[in-house]
Amino acid sequence: MSAEKTHIVILGGGFGGVYTAKYLWRHMRREERAQTKISLVSAENYLVFQPMLPEVISGTLETLHVISPIRRIVPKATLYVRAVEEVDLKNKRVRLAPGFSLRHIDLPYDHLVLALGNQLAHGLVPGMEEHAIPFKYLGDALRLRNHIVHVLEEAAIADDPKERERLLTFVVAGGGFSGVECIAEMHDFLTHAVRAYPSLDPKSLKTVLLQSAEHILPEMKPSLARFAHELLERRGVEIRLNTRLTAVTEHAAVVQNKADKVISTIPTRTVVATVPVETHPLIAEMPLEKIKGRVSVTGFLHTAEMPNVWAVGDCASIPLSDGGTAPPTAQHAVREAKLCAQNIVASMRHTEFKRFSFESLGSLASLGSRSAVADVMGVRISGLLAWILWRVVYLSKFPGLDRKLRILADWTMDLFLPRDITQVRIFRHAQVHREHFEPGEDIVRQGDIGDRVYFVIDGEADVVVNGQVCGSIVAGGVFGEIALMNNSPRTATIRARTVMNLASVQRDAFHTLVAHFPGVKGTMDELLATRMALRKQAVARSTTSLPT
Amino acid sequence: MSAEKTHIVILGGGFGGVYTAKYLWRHMRREERAQTKISLVSAENYLVFQPMLPEVISGTLETLHVISPIRRIVPKATLYVRAVEEVDLKNKRVRLAPGFSLRHIDLPYDHLVLALGNQLAHGLVPGMEEHAIPFKYLGDALRLRNHIVHVLEEAAIADDPKERERLLTFVVAGGGFSGVECIAEMHDFLTHAVRAYPSLDPKSLKTVLLQSAEHILPEMKPSLARFAHELLERRGVEIRLNTRLTAVTEHAAVVQNKADKVISTIPTRTVVATVPVETHPLIAEMPLEKIKGRVSVTGFLHTAEMPNVWAVGDCASIPLSDGGTAPPTAQHAVREAKLCAQNIVASMRHTEFKRFSFESLGSLASLGSRSAVADVMGVRISGLLAWILWRVVYLSKFPGLDRKLRILADWTMDLFLPRDITQVRIFRHAQVHREHFEPGEDIVRQGDIGDRVYFVIDGEADVVVNGQVCGSIVAGGVFGEIALMNNSPRTATIRARTVMNLASVQRDAFHTLVAHFPGVKGTMDELLATRMALRKQAVARSTTSLPT
Repeated sequence: MSAEKTHIVILGGGFGGVYTAKYLWRHMRREERAQTKISLVSAENYLVFQPMLPEVISGTLETLHVISPIRRIVPKATLYVRAVEEVDLKNKRVRLAPGFSLRHIDLPYDHLVLALGNQLAHGLVPGMEEHAIPFKYLGDALRLRNHIVHVLEEAAIADDPKERERLLTFVVAGGGFSGVECIAEMHDFLTHAVRAYPSLDPKSLKTVLLQSAEHILPEMKPSLARFAHELLERRGVEIRLNTRLTAVTEHAAVVQNKADKVISTIPTRTVVATVPVETHPLIAEMPLEKIKGRVSVTGFLHTAEMPNVWAVGDCASIPLSDGGTAPPTAQHAVREAKLCAQNIVASMRHTEFKRFSFESLGSLASLGSRSAVADVMGVRISGLLAWILWRVVYLSKFPGLDRKLRILADWTMDLFLPRDITQVRIFRHAQVHREHFEPGEDIVRQGDIGDRVYFVIDGEADVVVNGQVCGSIVAGGVFGEIALMNNSPRTATIRARTVMNLASVQRDAFHTLVAHFPGVKGTMDELLATRMALRKQAVARSTTSLPT
Repeated sequence: MSAEKTHIVILGGGFGGVYTAKYLWRHMRREERAQTKISLVSAENYLVFQPMLPEVISGTLETLHVISPIRRIVPKATLYVRAVEEVDLKNKRVRLAPGFSLRHIDLPYDHLVLALGNQLAHGLVPGMEEHAIPFKYLGDALRLRNHIVHVLEEAAIADDPKERERLLTFVVAGGGFSGVECIAEMHDFLTHAVRAYPSLDPKSLKTVLLQSAEHILPEMKPSLARFAHELLERRGVEIRLNTRLTAVTEHAAVVQNKADKVISTIPTRTVVATVPVETHPLIAEMPLEKIKGRVSVTGFLHTAEMPNVWAVGDCASIPLSDGGTAPPTAQHAVREAKLCAQNIVASMRHTEFKRFSFESLGSLASLGSRSAVADVMGVRISGLLAWILWRVVYLSKFPGLDRKLRILADWTMDLFLPRDITQVRIFRHAQVHREHFEPGEDIVRQGDIGDRVYFVIDGEADVVVNGQVCGSIVAGGVFGEIALMNNSPRTATIRARTVMNLASVQRDAFHTLVAHFPGVKGTMDELLATRMALRKQAVARSTTSLPT
């Protein structure tokens, strides 16, 4: 890059970022193009077409067909498939995380476009990060799909009716577009897939949608939301309104009714989280004014503080002429991107900026099984017609002719071919991770196979042997190592007495650490010796107290 | 299951296992079916159609289209998607690994069919398990595809020409069907995909095939193998005959010429392993006679030791009438499965067994870019005609009409749509894993970002600061913790002096362990204090020795 070139750096590979790059190139004249470098930084090398993501769950669409390679949309931009590590607004420099070679890449900029979106706020619900499946990225949809098939496979051979019920219960948190489309596709997939499992009764499937507000689809007109609600309920989806997810564990979703504050537990192995969202951490750190966690920009889309820092999409708070702000939809992001590109070019030409204004064309939600609800320019449509409209509209919006054709082919084949029930197990569980338990839950069960060792971060647990409480474990404690060190079944049940947070290390990693991490073997040997001595004492005591 | 039912347990979800289950059901009469339970144990819930696996790399076929759900092929068998933990031939019992619930499942059997195949022998080549990408399962093909795109993305923004060369070099070990088809598809994909990367010169791509024998495709007639060899070379694939892979590291493949014993190093980030294979560990443990690692069976397919233990497919050594043994191909596995099923039914009916005999129909190898080689009933074909034959034959063999249609659609669209270059990053690196280095390689580089800590299992390394060796590290040593504890760049380069094996722990896992694993924090603090003291001494020494 020559020193005189204007460098425009765009952060974020969603609709806002990718379309800003695309329109920038389009709006520049030939001589301007030669004088400009456009760098786009994205965590992935593809753009996800969010509205079609739920169809990956049901397998209606092939995984790779709901994404579009960014390079093909913006061939003239330099694409950095890296995470952003730091944004230095003062020195006008962006630092990217390392790749194969462990060095940072520093990008100086003349214009910076923030299009980082938002992220799921795992931290707000205990256990969500540890045990829920988020639903936002392509990897999430794939993971969810494979998890659902895994759960069906396990349910098909489960002897314990309680465990089978737990396996066959599916909970989605969030009644917005994403949550509703997700539960609709999941329900659809489950009812079709279960036919391949002769030992499972389709009636034993249970799908639950949690919505903290009073209606689902609050973005739509009440009459359409009601239609969607009734249709999902008729199909068998249980919808719990005014209900918040308050905790997630390996075995259950804990929910609270907002009206009567009653807390209840839904035994399940599958909790999908589409809410709540929070500000992207990089945005949160920036010394820029924010409104409800979004970067406050002028109607021209640049920040008031720095006219060369722009923001578009879900991370931007954009004032509209009616006093409101632009809603966080792909439709708006694309229009914002277009204006942002025009205004950056205007800034380079020293001509006048334009102000953002855009009337939404309407909203659409797919409900699976050939139905949808639509609200297009004031007209409300539901059912099959809305579903056809949904497909026509979104297909036309999908970037790239090749993808359009592939999606059409998928949809055509889905009309007459059975659902795919293969489970591609490529998701490795973290070897060292955190776990969350609620009071009364068993962390390990006596007699079970030991697959990991636990360290107590906070909370207290009872040690239960043959049904009798015979000790307790508190913060800083370790348990589960005996079964791993001796390769024997669990010698006791450990039951959470309070809310508990733990760190766990899986078998293989534990053995590697014991073998090679200095200090670990000594500590483990000591611990084991103490435990064995205590147990011998206990046995001795129980023997003497026995009637002779 | 009623106690009187005959229980047939089949281990393995490849062609041998799945087709044995299928033919068993087909050959039984209605009343026999009511008296029999067929259990099939498979690590995955799908059958992989191996010949089409390489097309997943190039994206010609959609990922899920090269696999077929086992439940749809054998709806009447009970499918256990579990690993096998133990086979107790004496007590006629198979023990399955735990699933969601941490209990074993024990399956007693009357007849046992071993169809476990073989596995890649990672242990034979140092560093292969740690740094090579195996090519055998569906997950491998996906991982390879995503790795290739990742490497292209990184090469596109790499400044260092050496690193770019390393990133653009791709090595496949093994010149059999699997290796040849793999390199052909990789080469095909690379030459198409690179066009989407304007900063990369297509001529800088380098693909290397390593074959330890004197020819590639030793299973085929020499003239056909020669044709394939010349065609691949003409396209630009470098074929190294008589060359063995002797070690793999993060940065290179080490190879040895069998004739002159000369060892050379190929700098690369991508080594794909299709060889060598070894006996499945469960088979290796069984007290049954084996020939070249395969279970020796009679011509009736049962073992001589136990007439109720049968073996088919790649794990079985099956005598043919000409004195040889049945080759390990899917074609043979299916025929063996059929006979095995017939003979088990015969055994239940106390009728006579049949003996295995089967004339191979021929062999086919796809070479990408619309060419192939074929050897069908004595007739040799190559080029486009062979390629069409390849597609017709394998499509007809693919189980399930729905899959046939989906594959046809994929092939049709591949004729005119561009290659997909999306990289779906769903593969998590192990947090605690082993690494292998060859003499002279840098394990960490001074100034790099520290992303993990290392423990030396064996070997020795030099500590190099500012180009000067100033210490060494031996087995039992730890390094790399300073950059993690202090969040600073690497303070020294650590260079392997000998062959080295290390265990490494990634940043996040390391911090969790330091925070919660008893004993770890103390050890790390001690280590850090010692190191800092040593460094102060060194600084003091160098200061006093300076001219004042």
